[in-house]
Amino acid sequence: MKLHGYFRSSASYRVRIALNLKGLSAEHLAHHLRKGEQCLPSYLAINPQGLVPTLENDAGAILTQSLAIIEWLDETQPAPPLLPKDPLQRAKVRAFAMALACDTHPVQNLKVLARLRQLGLPEEKVTEWAAWANREGLSACQTLILHEPGPFCFGAGPTIADLCLVPQLANARRFGVDVTAFPRLLQAETAAKNLKAFADAAPERQPDAE
Amino acid sequence: MKLHGYFRSSASYRVRIALNLKGLSAEHLAHHLRKGEQCLPSYLAINPQGLVPTLENDAGAILTQSLAIIEWLDETQPAPPLLPKDPLQRAKVRAFAMALACDTHPVQNLKVLARLRQLGLPEEKVTEWAAWANREGLSACQTLILHEPGPFCFGAGPTIADLCLVPQLANARRFGVDVTAFPRLLQAETAAKNLKAFADAAPERQPDAE
Repeated sequence: MKLHGYFRSSASYRVRIALNLKGLSAEHLAHHLRKGEQCLPSYLAINPQGLVPTLENDAGAILTQSLAIIEWLDETQPAPPLLPKDPLQRAKVRAFAMALACDTHPVQNLKVLARLRQLGLPEEKVTEWAAWANREGLSACQTLILHEPGPFCFGAGPTIADLCLVPQLANARRFGVDVTAFPRLLQAETAAKNLKAFADAAPERQPDAE
Repeated sequence: MKLHGYFRSSASYRVRIALNLKGLSAEHLAHHLRKGEQCLPSYLAINPQGLVPTLENDAGAILTQSLAIIEWLDETQPAPPLLPKDPLQRAKVRAFAMALACDTHPVQNLKVLARLRQLGLPEEKVTEWAAWANREGLSACQTLILHEPGPFCFGAGPTIADLCLVPQLANARRFGVDVTAFPRLLQAETAAKNLKAFADAAPERQPDAE
Protein backbone atom coordinates (compact mmCIF):
# COMPACT_ATOMS: atom_id res chain seq x y z
CA MET A 1 0.00 0.00 0.00
CA LYS A 2 1.01 3.61 -0.44
CA LEU A 3 0.06 6.36 2.00
CA HIS A 4 0.19 9.88 0.63
CA GLY A 5 0.64 12.20 3.59
CA TYR A 6 2.58 14.90 5.36
CA PHE A 7 4.39 14.50 8.66
CA ARG A 8 2.47 17.27 10.43
CA SER A 9 -0.97 16.62 8.95
CA SER A 10 -3.11 15.35 11.78
CA ALA A 11 -5.38 13.45 9.38
CA SER A 12 -2.32 11.60 8.00
CA TYR A 13 -1.16 10.99 11.58
CA ARG A 14 -4.48 9.24 12.36
CA VAL A 15 -4.04 6.82 9.47
CA ARG A 16 -0.39 6.14 10.35
CA ILE A 17 -1.50 5.11 13.85
CA ALA A 18 -4.24 2.85 12.42
CA LEU A 19 -1.82 1.13 10.03
CA ASN A 20 0.64 0.55 12.89
CA LEU A 21 -2.04 -0.83 15.21
CA LYS A 22 -3.14 -3.24 12.48
CA GLY A 23 0.48 -4.27 11.84
CA LEU A 24 0.28 -3.10 8.22
CA SER A 25 3.09 -1.42 6.36
CA ALA A 26 2.76 1.18 3.64
CA GLU A 27 5.15 3.16 1.52
CA HIS A 28 4.94 6.74 2.76
CA LEU A 29 4.84 9.37 0.06
CA ALA A 30 5.29 12.88 1.44
CA HIS A 31 3.53 15.89 -0.07
CA HIS A 32 4.80 19.16 1.35
CA LEU A 33 1.64 21.05 2.26
CA ARG A 34 3.34 24.36 2.98
CA LYS A 35 4.86 24.28 -0.50
CA GLY A 36 1.42 23.51 -1.98
CA GLU A 37 2.37 20.10 -3.36
CA GLN A 38 -1.13 18.80 -2.55
CA CYS A 39 -2.45 21.13 -5.26
CA LEU A 40 -0.30 19.76 -8.09
CA PRO A 41 -2.40 18.24 -10.91
CA SER A 42 -0.71 14.85 -10.36
CA TYR A 43 -1.98 14.78 -6.77
CA LEU A 44 -5.41 16.26 -7.49
CA ALA A 45 -5.90 13.37 -9.93
CA ILE A 46 -6.02 10.97 -6.98
CA ASN A 47 -7.45 13.35 -4.36
CA PRO A 48 -9.69 16.03 -5.89
CA GLN A 49 -9.97 17.80 -2.53
CA GLY A 50 -6.22 18.48 -2.52
CA LEU A 51 -5.98 17.14 1.01
CA VAL A 52 -3.91 14.44 2.65
CA PRO A 53 -4.04 11.56 3.35
CA THR A 54 -4.79 9.34 0.38
CA LEU A 55 -4.30 5.59 0.57
CA GLU A 56 -3.61 3.43 -2.47
CA ASN A 57 -4.31 -0.17 -1.58
CA ASP A 58 -2.49 -3.20 -2.97
CA ALA A 59 -4.95 -3.44 -5.86
CA GLY A 60 -4.34 0.20 -6.76
CA ALA A 61 -7.71 1.45 -5.48
CA ILE A 62 -7.71 5.00 -4.15
CA LEU A 63 -9.17 5.83 -0.75
CA THR A 64 -9.55 9.34 0.65
CA GLN A 65 -10.71 10.91 3.95
CA SER A 66 -8.88 9.65 7.02
CA LEU A 67 -11.92 8.30 8.88
CA ALA A 68 -13.23 6.51 5.78
CA ILE A 69 -9.78 4.95 5.31
CA ILE A 70 -9.68 3.89 8.96
CA GLU A 71 -13.17 2.36 8.83
CA TRP A 72 -12.07 0.45 5.70
CA LEU A 73 -8.95 -0.81 7.46
CA ASP A 74 -11.10 -1.89 10.40
CA GLU A 75 -13.55 -3.72 8.14
CA THR A 76 -10.91 -5.49 6.06
CA GLN A 77 -8.36 -6.16 8.84
CA PRO A 78 -10.57 -6.59 11.91
CA ALA A 79 -7.80 -7.32 14.46
CA PRO A 80 -7.27 -5.47 16.68
CA PRO A 81 -10.62 -3.68 16.44
CA LEU A 82 -10.65 0.11 16.43
CA LEU A 83 -14.34 0.31 17.31
CA PRO A 84 -16.28 -1.45 20.11
CA LYS A 85 -18.79 -4.16 19.20
CA ASP A 86 -21.86 -2.63 20.84
CA PRO A 87 -23.66 -0.32 18.37
CA LEU A 88 -24.38 2.37 20.95
CA GLN A 89 -20.79 2.40 22.13
CA ARG A 90 -19.61 2.51 18.49
CA ALA A 91 -21.80 5.57 18.02
CA LYS A 92 -20.23 7.27 21.03
CA VAL A 93 -16.70 6.53 19.81
CA ARG A 94 -17.52 7.79 16.33
CA ALA A 95 -19.17 10.93 17.74
CA PHE A 96 -16.03 11.75 19.74
CA ALA A 97 -13.84 11.16 16.67
CA MET A 98 -16.13 13.32 14.51
CA ALA A 99 -16.27 16.14 17.04
CA LEU A 100 -12.56 16.46 16.24
CA ALA A 101 -12.44 15.28 12.60
CA CYS A 102 -15.49 17.29 11.50
CA ASP A 103 -15.90 20.25 13.81
CA THR A 104 -12.38 20.97 15.02
CA HIS A 105 -9.60 20.00 12.63
CA PRO A 106 -11.13 21.30 9.36
CA VAL A 107 -11.79 24.70 10.95
CA GLN A 108 -8.09 25.11 11.78
CA ASN A 109 -6.42 23.37 8.85
CA LEU A 110 -3.87 25.01 6.56
CA LYS A 111 -6.42 25.80 3.87
CA VAL A 112 -8.75 27.69 6.20
CA LEU A 113 -5.93 29.55 7.95
CA ALA A 114 -4.54 30.57 4.54
CA ARG A 115 -7.98 31.92 3.64
CA LEU A 116 -8.06 33.97 6.85
CA ARG A 117 -4.68 35.48 5.94
CA GLN A 118 -5.99 36.32 2.47
CA LEU A 119 -8.82 38.23 4.15
CA GLY A 120 -6.16 40.38 5.79
CA LEU A 121 -6.26 38.85 9.27
CA PRO A 122 -2.97 39.48 11.13
CA GLU A 123 -0.94 36.43 12.17
CA GLU A 124 -1.82 36.64 15.87
CA LYS A 125 -5.54 36.62 15.02
CA VAL A 126 -5.03 33.60 12.77
CA THR A 127 -3.34 31.73 15.62
CA GLU A 128 -6.10 32.85 17.99
CA TRP A 129 -8.69 31.41 15.56
CA ALA A 130 -6.91 28.06 15.45
CA ALA A 131 -6.56 28.00 19.24
CA TRP A 132 -10.27 28.80 19.62
CA ALA A 133 -11.27 25.91 17.32
CA ASN A 134 -9.04 23.52 19.28
CA ARG A 135 -10.30 24.66 22.68
CA GLU A 136 -13.95 24.36 21.61
CA GLY A 137 -13.46 20.84 20.27
CA LEU A 138 -11.28 19.48 23.04
CA SER A 139 -13.44 20.94 25.77
CA ALA A 140 -16.54 19.23 24.36
CA CYS A 141 -14.62 15.98 23.89
CA GLN A 142 -13.52 15.92 27.50
CA THR A 143 -17.15 16.22 28.57
CA LEU A 144 -18.17 13.44 26.15
CA ILE A 145 -15.93 10.93 27.96
CA LEU A 146 -16.11 12.14 31.56
CA HIS A 147 -18.07 9.05 32.57
CA GLU A 148 -16.20 6.57 30.35
CA PRO A 149 -13.66 4.31 31.99
CA GLY A 150 -10.01 5.01 31.15
CA PRO A 151 -7.19 5.04 30.61
CA PHE A 152 -7.97 5.42 26.89
CA CYS A 153 -10.87 7.58 25.69
CA PHE A 154 -13.20 4.59 25.83
CA GLY A 155 -11.83 1.97 28.17
CA ALA A 156 -8.85 -0.31 28.21
CA GLY A 157 -7.70 -0.07 24.60
CA PRO A 158 -7.37 2.44 21.78
CA THR A 159 -10.26 3.24 19.43
CA ILE A 160 -10.66 5.71 16.60
CA ALA A 161 -11.37 8.29 19.34
CA ASP A 162 -7.74 8.05 20.50
CA LEU A 163 -6.54 8.05 16.88
CA CYS A 164 -8.16 11.46 16.48
CA LEU A 165 -7.34 12.80 19.93
CA VAL A 166 -3.56 12.37 19.92
CA PRO A 167 -2.96 14.31 16.67
CA GLN A 168 -5.45 17.00 17.72
CA LEU A 169 -3.68 17.58 21.02
CA ALA A 170 -0.43 18.04 19.06
CA ASN A 171 -2.14 20.71 16.97
CA ALA A 172 -3.60 22.38 20.06
CA ARG A 173 -0.17 22.72 21.64
CA ARG A 174 1.26 24.10 18.41
CA PHE A 175 -1.36 26.86 18.54
CA GLY A 176 -0.60 27.66 22.19
CA VAL A 177 -3.67 26.07 23.81
CA ASP A 178 -3.27 25.29 27.52
CA VAL A 179 -4.06 21.59 27.32
CA THR A 180 -3.73 21.09 31.09
CA ALA A 181 -7.39 22.17 31.14
CA PHE A 182 -8.19 18.71 29.74
CA PRO A 183 -6.80 16.16 32.27
CA ARG A 184 -9.07 13.32 31.11
CA LEU A 185 -7.84 13.80 27.53
CA LEU A 186 -4.22 13.90 28.70
CA GLN A 187 -4.78 10.63 30.55
CA ALA A 188 -5.88 9.02 27.28
CA GLU A 189 -3.00 10.61 25.40
CA THR A 190 -0.46 9.20 27.88
CA ALA A 191 -1.92 5.71 27.57
CA ALA A 192 -1.84 5.97 23.78
CA LYS A 193 1.68 7.36 23.52
CA ASN A 194 2.95 4.43 25.56
CA LEU A 195 2.01 2.19 22.64
CA LYS A 196 4.65 1.74 19.93
CA ALA A 197 1.97 2.11 17.23
CA PHE A 198 1.29 5.67 18.38
CA ALA A 199 4.93 6.55 19.09
CA ASP A 200 6.10 5.40 15.66
CA ALA A 201 3.38 7.45 13.96
CA ALA A 202 4.40 10.74 15.60
CA PRO A 203 5.16 13.62 13.22
CA GLU A 204 8.75 13.99 14.45
CA ARG A 205 9.42 10.32 13.65
CA GLN A 206 8.49 10.66 9.95
CA PRO A 207 11.14 10.86 7.21
CA ASP A 208 9.74 14.18 5.93
CA ALA A 209 9.83 15.83 9.39
CA GLU A 210 11.54 19.23 9.44
CA MET B 1 -37.05 8.48 19.94
CA LYS B 2 -36.49 12.22 20.15
CA LEU B 3 -34.55 14.21 17.58
CA HIS B 4 -33.21 17.54 18.75
CA GLY B 5 -32.68 19.69 15.65
CA TYR B 6 -33.38 22.83 13.70
CA PHE B 7 -35.23 23.01 10.41
CA ARG B 8 -32.39 24.65 8.51
CA SER B 9 -29.50 22.73 10.08
CA SER B 10 -28.07 20.54 7.35
CA ALA B 11 -26.76 18.03 9.88
CA SER B 12 -30.29 17.67 11.33
CA TYR B 13 -31.65 17.37 7.77
CA ARG B 14 -29.33 14.38 7.11
CA VAL B 15 -30.69 12.53 10.15
CA ARG B 16 -34.30 13.36 9.26
CA ILE B 17 -33.76 11.75 5.84
CA ALA B 18 -32.16 8.67 7.44
CA LEU B 19 -35.05 8.22 9.88
CA ASN B 20 -37.57 8.54 7.03
CA LEU B 21 -35.69 6.06 4.82
CA LYS B 22 -35.65 3.56 7.70
CA GLY B 23 -39.35 4.13 8.35
CA LEU B 24 -38.68 5.32 11.89
CA SER B 25 -40.53 8.11 13.63
CA ALA B 26 -39.14 10.49 16.20
CA GLU B 27 -40.49 13.39 18.17
CA HIS B 28 -38.87 16.49 16.74
CA LEU B 29 -37.65 19.02 19.30
CA ALA B 30 -36.64 22.31 17.72
CA HIS B 31 -33.78 24.42 19.08
CA HIS B 32 -33.63 27.84 17.45
CA LEU B 33 -29.97 28.21 16.48
CA ARG B 34 -30.18 31.89 15.55
CA LYS B 35 -31.57 32.62 19.02
CA GLY B 36 -28.72 30.61 20.58
CA GLU B 37 -30.98 27.97 22.14
CA GLN B 38 -28.32 25.32 21.43
CA CYS B 39 -26.12 27.04 24.03
CA LEU B 40 -28.61 26.83 26.90
CA PRO B 41 -27.30 24.75 29.83
CA SER B 42 -30.20 22.32 29.46
CA TYR B 43 -29.13 21.53 25.88
CA LEU B 44 -25.39 21.54 26.56
CA ALA B 45 -26.08 18.85 29.16
CA ILE B 46 -26.99 16.44 26.36
CA ASN B 47 -24.75 17.88 23.63
CA PRO B 48 -21.59 19.49 25.02
CA GLN B 49 -20.65 20.79 21.57
CA GLY B 50 -23.79 22.93 21.49
CA LEU B 51 -24.60 21.61 18.03
CA VAL B 52 -27.60 19.90 16.51
CA PRO B 53 -28.68 17.18 15.97
CA THR B 54 -28.86 15.03 19.08
CA LEU B 55 -30.85 11.80 19.10
CA GLU B 56 -32.34 10.29 22.24
CA ASN B 57 -33.17 6.67 21.56
CA ASP B 58 -36.05 4.72 23.10
CA ALA B 59 -33.87 3.67 26.03
CA GLY B 60 -32.93 7.30 26.73
CA ALA B 61 -29.37 6.98 25.42
CA ILE B 62 -27.92 10.14 23.90
CA LEU B 63 -26.28 10.11 20.46
CA THR B 64 -24.53 13.08 18.87
CA GLN B 65 -22.87 13.84 15.52
CA SER B 66 -25.08 13.27 12.50
CA LEU B 67 -22.89 10.69 10.74
CA ALA B 68 -22.38 8.70 13.95
CA ILE B 69 -26.16 8.72 14.47
CA ILE B 70 -26.74 7.59 10.87
CA GLU B 71 -24.17 4.77 11.14
CA TRP B 72 -25.90 3.67 14.36
CA LEU B 73 -29.29 3.69 12.63
CA ASP B 74 -27.81 1.65 9.79
CA GLU B 75 -26.28 -0.89 12.18
CA THR B 76 -29.39 -1.30 14.32
CA GLN B 77 -32.04 -1.02 11.56
CA PRO B 78 -30.24 -2.49 8.54
CA ALA B 79 -33.09 -2.18 6.01
CA PRO B 80 -32.86 -0.39 3.69
CA PRO B 81 -29.05 -0.12 3.87
CA LEU B 82 -27.48 3.32 3.66
CA LEU B 83 -24.04 1.95 2.80
CA PRO B 84 -23.03 -0.60 0.13
CA LYS B 85 -21.83 -4.05 1.22
CA ASP B 86 -18.42 -4.00 -0.47
CA PRO B 87 -15.80 -2.49 1.90
CA LEU B 88 -14.08 -0.47 -0.83
CA GLN B 89 -17.36 0.97 -2.05
CA ARG B 90 -18.35 1.74 1.57
CA ALA B 91 -15.08 3.67 1.90
CA LYS B 92 -15.87 5.69 -1.22
CA VAL B 93 -19.38 6.51 -0.02
CA ARG B 94 -18.07 7.52 3.41
CA ALA B 95 -15.30 9.63 1.84
CA PHE B 96 -17.87 11.54 -0.23
CA ALA B 97 -20.05 12.07 2.84
CA MET B 98 -17.08 13.23 4.90
CA ALA B 99 -15.82 15.60 2.22
CA LEU B 100 -19.06 17.45 2.95
CA ALA B 101 -19.60 16.64 6.65
CA CYS B 102 -15.98 17.28 7.69
CA ASP B 103 -14.44 19.70 5.20
CA THR B 104 -17.36 21.71 3.91
CA HIS B 105 -20.27 22.10 6.31
CA PRO B 106 -18.30 22.85 9.53
CA VAL B 107 -16.32 25.58 7.74
CA GLN B 108 -19.56 27.40 6.86
CA ASN B 109 -21.75 26.67 9.85
CA LEU B 110 -23.38 29.33 12.02
CA LYS B 111 -20.69 29.16 14.70
CA VAL B 112 -17.82 29.80 12.29
CA LEU B 113 -19.66 32.54 10.40
CA ALA B 114 -20.47 34.24 13.73
CA ARG B 115 -16.76 34.13 14.59
CA LEU B 116 -15.89 35.77 11.27
CA ARG B 117 -18.35 38.58 12.04
CA GLN B 118 -16.78 39.00 15.48
CA LEU B 119 -13.45 39.50 13.73
CA GLY B 120 -15.00 42.44 11.94
CA LEU B 121 -15.59 40.83 8.56
CA PRO B 122 -18.35 42.63 6.63
CA GLU B 123 -21.45 40.62 5.73
CA GLU B 124 -20.60 40.24 2.03
CA LYS B 125 -17.21 38.75 2.94
CA VAL B 126 -18.89 36.32 5.34
CA THR B 127 -21.23 35.15 2.58
CA GLU B 128 -18.27 34.92 0.19
CA TRP B 129 -16.46 32.70 2.72
CA ALA B 130 -19.47 30.39 3.01
CA ALA B 131 -19.86 30.25 -0.78
CA TRP B 132 -16.15 29.44 -1.17
CA ALA B 133 -16.38 26.54 1.31
CA ASN B 134 -19.42 25.16 -0.53
CA ARG B 135 -17.85 25.48 -4.00
CA GLU B 136 -14.64 23.77 -2.86
CA GLY B 137 -16.48 20.84 -1.32
CA LEU B 138 -19.09 20.35 -4.03
CA SER B 139 -16.54 20.63 -6.82
CA ALA B 140 -14.39 17.89 -5.26
CA CYS B 141 -17.47 15.74 -4.63
CA GLN B 142 -18.55 15.95 -8.25
CA THR B 143 -15.12 14.68 -9.30
CA LEU B 144 -15.30 11.87 -6.73
CA ILE B 145 -18.39 10.38 -8.41
CA LEU B 146 -17.77 11.21 -12.08
CA HIS B 147 -17.25 7.53 -12.87
CA GLU B 148 -19.93 6.17 -10.55
CA PRO B 149 -23.22 5.06 -12.08
CA GLY B 150 -26.26 7.23 -11.33
CA PRO B 151 -28.80 8.43 -10.80
CA PHE B 152 -27.89 8.67 -7.10
CA CYS B 153 -24.34 9.51 -6.01
CA PHE B 154 -23.44 5.84 -5.95
CA GLY B 155 -25.78 3.89 -8.18
CA ALA B 156 -29.44 3.00 -8.10
CA GLY B 157 -30.34 3.90 -4.51
CA PRO B 158 -29.60 6.48 -1.84
CA THR B 159 -26.59 6.16 0.48
CA ILE B 160 -25.17 8.42 3.17
CA ALA B 161 -23.52 10.32 0.30
CA ASP B 162 -26.95 11.51 -0.89
CA LEU B 163 -27.99 12.21 2.72
CA CYS B 164 -25.12 14.68 2.95
CA LEU B 165 -25.38 16.04 -0.59
CA VAL B 166 -29.00 17.20 -0.60
CA PRO B 167 -28.71 19.39 2.53
CA GLN B 168 -25.36 20.77 1.36
CA LEU B 169 -26.78 21.84 -2.00
CA ALA B 170 -29.52 23.68 -0.10
CA ASN B 171 -26.84 25.54 1.85
CA ALA B 172 -24.86 26.30 -1.31
CA ARG B 173 -27.88 27.91 -2.94
CA ARG B 174 -28.57 29.93 0.19
CA PHE B 175 -25.05 31.38 -0.09
CA GLY B 176 -25.47 32.21 -3.77
CA VAL B 177 -23.35 29.42 -5.27
CA ASP B 178 -24.10 28.66 -8.93
CA VAL B 179 -24.86 24.97 -8.51
CA THR B 180 -25.42 24.44 -12.24
CA ALA B 181 -21.63 23.92 -12.32
CA PHE B 182 -22.30 20.52 -10.73
CA PRO B 183 -24.64 18.64 -13.11
CA ARG B 184 -23.71 15.20 -11.75
CA LEU B 185 -24.60 16.34 -8.23
CA LEU B 186 -27.87 17.83 -9.45
CA GLN B 187 -28.72 14.51 -11.10
CA ALA B 188 -28.32 12.78 -7.73
CA GLU B 189 -30.29 15.52 -5.98
CA THR B 190 -33.21 15.13 -8.41
CA ALA B 191 -33.30 11.36 -7.88
CA ALA B 192 -33.21 11.86 -4.11
CA LYS B 193 -35.85 14.57 -3.96
CA ASN B 194 -38.24 12.29 -5.87
CA LEU B 195 -38.27 10.04 -2.81
CA LYS B 196 -40.82 10.85 -0.12
CA ALA B 197 -38.18 10.25 2.59
CA PHE B 198 -36.14 13.16 1.26
CA ALA B 199 -39.10 15.40 0.45
CA ASP B 200 -40.61 15.03 3.93
CA ALA B 201 -37.26 15.88 5.54
CA ALA B 202 -36.86 19.20 3.71
CA PRO B 203 -36.36 22.28 5.92
CA GLU B 204 -39.50 24.00 4.63
CA ARG B 205 -41.60 20.98 5.62
CA GLN B 206 -40.57 21.12 9.29
CA PRO B 207 -42.87 22.53 11.99
CA ASP B 208 -40.23 25.07 13.09
CA ALA B 209 -39.67 26.41 9.55
CA GLU B 210 -39.88 30.18 9.28
